[in-house]
Amino acid sequence: MVLTTRRRTLLGMGGACSLGLLGTSAEALAAQENGRKLGYAIVGLGTYADVILPRFAECRHSRVTALVSGSPEKARRYAAQYGVPDSGLYSYDTFDTIRDNPDVDIVYVILPNGMHHEYTLRAAAAGKHVMCEKPMANTAAQAEEMIAACRAAGRKLMIRYRSHFEANNREAMRLARSGELGTLRIVTAEHGFNIGDPTQWRLNRALAGGGSLMDIGIYSLQAARYLTGEEPISVSAVESTDRSDVRFREVEDTINFQLVFPSGVVADCVSTYGSHHNRYRVVGTQGWLDAEPATAYEGNRLRLRREWRTADHPAPELALNQFSGQLDHLSQCVMTDSDPIVPGEEGLRDMRIIEAIYRSAREGRTVAL
Amino acid sequence: MVLTTRRRTLLGMGGACSLGLLGTSAEALAAQENGRKLGYAIVGLGTYADVILPRFAECRHSRVTALVSGSPEKARRYAAQYGVPDSGLYSYDTFDTIRDNPDVDIVYVILPNGMHHEYTLRAAAAGKHVMCEKPMANTAAQAEEMIAACRAAGRKLMIRYRSHFEANNREAMRLARSGELGTLRIVTAEHGFNIGDPTQWRLNRALAGGGSLMDIGIYSLQAARYLTGEEPISVSAVESTDRSDVRFREVEDTINFQLVFPSGVVADCVSTYGSHHNRYRVVGTQGWLDAEPATAYEGNRLRLRREWRTADHPAPELALNQFSGQLDHLSQCVMTDSDPIVPGEEGLRDMRIIEAIYRSAREGRTVAL
Repeated sequence: MVLTTRRRTLLGMGGACSLGLLGTSAEALAAQENGRKLGYAIVGLGTYADVILPRFAECRHSRVTALVSGSPEKARRYAAQYGVPDSGLYSYDTFDTIRDNPDVDIVYVILPNGMHHEYTLRAAAAGKHVMCEKPMANTAAQAEEMIAACRAAGRKLMIRYRSHFEANNREAMRLARSGELGTLRIVTAEHGFNIGDPTQWRLNRALAGGGSLMDIGIYSLQAARYLTGEEPISVSAVESTDRSDVRFREVEDTINFQLVFPSGVVADCVSTYGSHHNRYRVVGTQGWLDAEPATAYEGNRLRLRREWRTADHPAPELALNQFSGQLDHLSQCVMTDSDPIVPGEEGLRDMRIIEAIYRSAREGRTVAL
Repeated sequence: MVLTTRRRTLLGMGGACSLGLLGTSAEALAAQENGRKLGYAIVGLGTYADVILPRFAECRHSRVTALVSGSPEKARRYAAQYGVPDSGLYSYDTFDTIRDNPDVDIVYVILPNGMHHEYTLRAAAAGKHVMCEKPMANTAAQAEEMIAACRAAGRKLMIRYRSHFEANNREAMRLARSGELGTLRIVTAEHGFNIGDPTQWRLNRALAGGGSLMDIGIYSLQAARYLTGEEPISVSAVESTDRSDVRFREVEDTINFQLVFPSGVVADCVSTYGSHHNRYRVVGTQGWLDAEPATAYEGNRLRLRREWRTADHPAPELALNQFSGQLDHLSQCVMTDSDPIVPGEEGLRDMRIIEAIYRSAREGRTVAL
């Protein structure tokens, strides 16, 4: 019953993976049969690790078997909390010896953006599959090297785009592409928050690669792409940053961008470190869907307007939430040797568009993609 | 009591008019004393005339005393309905003789955009004050001539920007500029509809001057300006028009634009003839206000988010609705010899920005204002 619901929900999504998408019946049965859970090494015990680590308890195919941290004390504390053996504790200096740990199948890189490239390459060299945080890297060139390294090592590379595993966002993708809104015309997507502590790595160019666009605006970019199912052909962007604000000495605050898609759809996207935004709307000739919050950890809300009436639109439930769903997805892809629905190539597509957005804002002109 | 409420509502709006803004106590008393209603001539008996004509019944200082139409039969029918004497009926050929009609104080030009220039000049030459529909003209150059003509004739010129007389929009202006949302950061404004009949004047370049931007996108532009109270310093626009669509042989469909304001606020604006949009949001560091519908004839809704809670925010009532309010405003400005809050200069500002938007989209670059 649950599987049927999930399969129906995911029909026609056009994911890259023919098998591994949140589990088909065949996969689920295979997994049940061998009962195997793949082992994750978590690299970087920062804020988002605190979000991810508790989610392994809900996973069917994934468990945490190693931790990598610069602080032995912190590593031991987390190890005790999440049942990681001493043999699974690494520093950044000893990280490469993880190749000898048979309990680690996947390395999950939750480090600052500027370190994704190095640790993905080192993980691949250690013979491990890789889950990498978004944005994939500081530059598209780095992203290309990460893809090449994982391919050469015969290992999977998946980018942590959690919205692809969240019920409302998946339903929004389905609805937007189904024709139920008529012909799609306009997407608006807004993501931002009022950033605090000026000393945090997100405001350091070397570690973050950029400002709001790299960190939170990328959700607007992703939404525009996954809601339309199209790739933009041009981008036009404007930046607004108060360089006298101590937070923005190195990276941008607001950078809003307009994407034009081959069908003629235009997406207006907000990316800011100055105010709170978390929503999108897809407008077609026959109605719209609206998500607010759109990509929160929980409490997302979807509304649908058709025939001039607006109503809440509860999405079909998924067996797993967006966090455990993403973790198990990569485990299943490894187990069945199939491609993740959000592979390194998906991260690279965003990086190329992000570089075009920066170029457009810098040069004050529309940039073709 | 009503006057007190209205005065409080309007405090600090920074309107151009020191006296005539919807009536101060002194004006209201003066009007009550002489009981005089100024006479309007309605030029063009199209769809919007059907909206305006019934509103004179609610006016305190305005009445309809003349009609100008190309159809004598239609003019007679409307005259009977609205109590206009035969002596107040004109064709476009006889329009200039309106100078001899002492019952006409104001000419309200509700013709297609491409005719605003001619009829404003003819009305001024006939010694009449002018209310002109939005957009003010096809070009900024025409708008300048209209302002000069009315000034030379010593007559008022007001542009029909009805949102300035609508309770929710006035409250939104007050809130946005009050600091209650913190520092303003982002405005999003969307206006559009899925246009029908391909033979209508709105799709004829000579009559309309342009496409969605001239007709409906101008509401997004206006909102961005009146909500921030600032003038944009640059614009970046993208156009998306399917020229194989029979409706869009001469004018644009979608033209979305980003405005940057001196304070650093960025406005993302939608203008389209392809899908229905009627909303805006003003986002500050401490919260936001959201209007949807934002600029409808009725049923507008305002919401306010502060301290992470969203609630409906009913605006203080105004004594008149947006239609009768705009009509009486110009009458009061004439009676007190004061300037309208939305004079010809306000229309000209929009026309200059509109021309920059078109240039930006055409040349694929940011245009400084």
